[in-house]
Amino acid sequence: MKLTILFGGASFEHEISIVSAITLKEKLAGFNLTFIFCDQDHSFYLIDASKMKATTFSRGEYKKMPKLTLSSGTFVQKGLFSKAEHSSTVLNLIHGADGEDGSIAALLDFYSIKYIGPRIDASVFSYDKRYTKWLCNARGVKSLKHEELSLKEHNNIKIPYPIIVKPSRLGSSIGVSIVKEESELDYALDSAFEFDTRVIVEPFLQGVKEYNLAGFGADGKMHFSIVEEPQKNEFLDFEKKYMDFSRSEQVLKADVSKELESKLRTNFEKVYKGMFEGALIRCDFFVVDGEVYLNEINPIPGSMANYLFEDFAQSLELLANSLPHAKRARVNYEYIHSISKAKGK
Amino acid sequence: MKLTILFGGASFEHEISIVSAITLKEKLAGFNLTFIFCDQDHSFYLIDASKMKATTFSRGEYKKMPKLTLSSGTFVQKGLFSKAEHSSTVLNLIHGADGEDGSIAALLDFYSIKYIGPRIDASVFSYDKRYTKWLCNARGVKSLKHEELSLKEHNNIKIPYPIIVKPSRLGSSIGVSIVKEESELDYALDSAFEFDTRVIVEPFLQGVKEYNLAGFGADGKMHFSIVEEPQKNEFLDFEKKYMDFSRSEQVLKADVSKELESKLRTNFEKVYKGMFEGALIRCDFFVVDGEVYLNEINPIPGSMANYLFEDFAQSLELLANSLPHAKRARVNYEYIHSISKAKGK
Repeated sequence: MKLTILFGGASFEHEISIVSAITLKEKLAGFNLTFIFCDQDHSFYLIDASKMKATTFSRGEYKKMPKLTLSSGTFVQKGLFSKAEHSSTVLNLIHGADGEDGSIAALLDFYSIKYIGPRIDASVFSYDKRYTKWLCNARGVKSLKHEELSLKEHNNIKIPYPIIVKPSRLGSSIGVSIVKEESELDYALDSAFEFDTRVIVEPFLQGVKEYNLAGFGADGKMHFSIVEEPQKNEFLDFEKKYMDFSRSEQVLKADVSKELESKLRTNFEKVYKGMFEGALIRCDFFVVDGEVYLNEINPIPGSMANYLFEDFAQSLELLANSLPHAKRARVNYEYIHSISKAKGK
Repeated sequence: MKLTILFGGASFEHEISIVSAITLKEKLAGFNLTFIFCDQDHSFYLIDASKMKATTFSRGEYKKMPKLTLSSGTFVQKGLFSKAEHSSTVLNLIHGADGEDGSIAALLDFYSIKYIGPRIDASVFSYDKRYTKWLCNARGVKSLKHEELSLKEHNNIKIPYPIIVKPSRLGSSIGVSIVKEESELDYALDSAFEFDTRVIVEPFLQGVKEYNLAGFGADGKMHFSIVEEPQKNEFLDFEKKYMDFSRSEQVLKADVSKELESKLRTNFEKVYKGMFEGALIRCDFFVVDGEVYLNEINPIPGSMANYLFEDFAQSLELLANSLPHAKRARVNYEYIHSISKAKGK
């Protein structure tokens, strides 16, 4: 199968995206892959597969590679006397800003390029943790209670300690702190506000059971990965998660009852349907007293959560053949014609 | 002031956008205006001001005008031996799809072009009437109860007749019907589902008081238009609204008490703050038993609701000088460098 891996982006998770792309190069060795890099200035570059290593980017060597622009249905590489098109289905692998905030989705939709990844709406509801809560409420999915803080107003937190402080719009644990007592609060808020103007606070549940489940819709039904119980030392810090994005070995299925697995799947589907079509997402859940709570949605999980699927390549191909496509309105100038006619022009 | 009016789009409201742009050409005669047209194939054209009339578009004459592409900070016009840039602040005047669904916002943000109009999140929450209800709930603003219908499930509507049936994602009354009894339901549903796969139903409130209020945030505070009581014959049909978009004469202030005006403003501000910054929007309210209900948000109102402002040109200039700008993450390859170092490479 032909597939274009689009990665990079002007995001705090830029480097993680590079690691994800390198990992997928290995996992999708049977595919005919094209690599397109979006740098922090939003220029696109065609990266030769043999150059897919971290230093190509950190040393700026990518800048010598062919620059691409967007055009209807394709990325275009313009030479002095030539023009090459790169038009295979895109896998949006840009984590964080650009990739997950709806920008890349809008760009690819606007230029009619088929892609695997969340659409604009789905991006907005998963990128900002506040909106994820609104989605949960509307869909009957439980989520932890929370409070929103702004730079101006961040006193009077009512949730008792320990609490967890998070930038509202970042993933990969960037800017996240666990606060056990008030004396630690200011530092945690400073860290969070460094990355976002919007911060949320939730209760920190010591020793809570966590389960991750990935999946996607294709052929009119849901396809789920195995359930994973992520290892944790309090919570994964950024460096740990960074390494985590290069995972490519299939993990072991968590020891969960059929009943719990079914509950996790039901909650996943409530969140996914009518919102995330076209994307392979990972939902991270908490289980408290047998009740399932959605913690967060990763609409472009690190290395596409390949390690949770028994046959990742096959799953991706199935999804690629089931992508939604936006119906575009056609214009017939009916009203202008009828008015011109009425005016006798 | 220099301003680029971006209009057209692949939308059922394409023609309305043309009418809006022609109206603003007249209203903003003191500005240095550039006109950029987005056609239904998503190509951009530079339109000479003297050609800003409906037939330029309905007869396809725009296709002979210079084509533009997007580049960092600007629209670019490429000649054989030349390159001209059109980089003034953009007024996003594309109604409906493209303009109001977040696509144009994402495009302009991605290419770092300053613009007046809703950002991606604000677009998503105003474009789909279901999400507007979620926003209302979260912000403590009342809205009418509703039910969602999908093509597969649209029986068992519990709201008693008369009801109003609307496509979830279109404006300008397209596909909207009032249904007084069950026998009229099928036709109404067919009309709505012709335009959207998502349809909502609300109670139809005969003779309800309606008030429109426009406004925007600038210089750290809200600026409001006068309150208008829109004329109505049941509700405005598309053709009527179409003519409505060419309005340029200031309307009379509705006869509302200071108390009601203040309630409308309070509700407007609850919806606007932390969401619609950068946009001049119009909120349409119902008033039932003295209580204010948000009916819908027009994030790019027809001809920018110019007729509601005492000094429209000045208002727009104030807003143009107060636009939010997205802070872009910078990348320093810290993790890749540290890993390379650890590996001794």
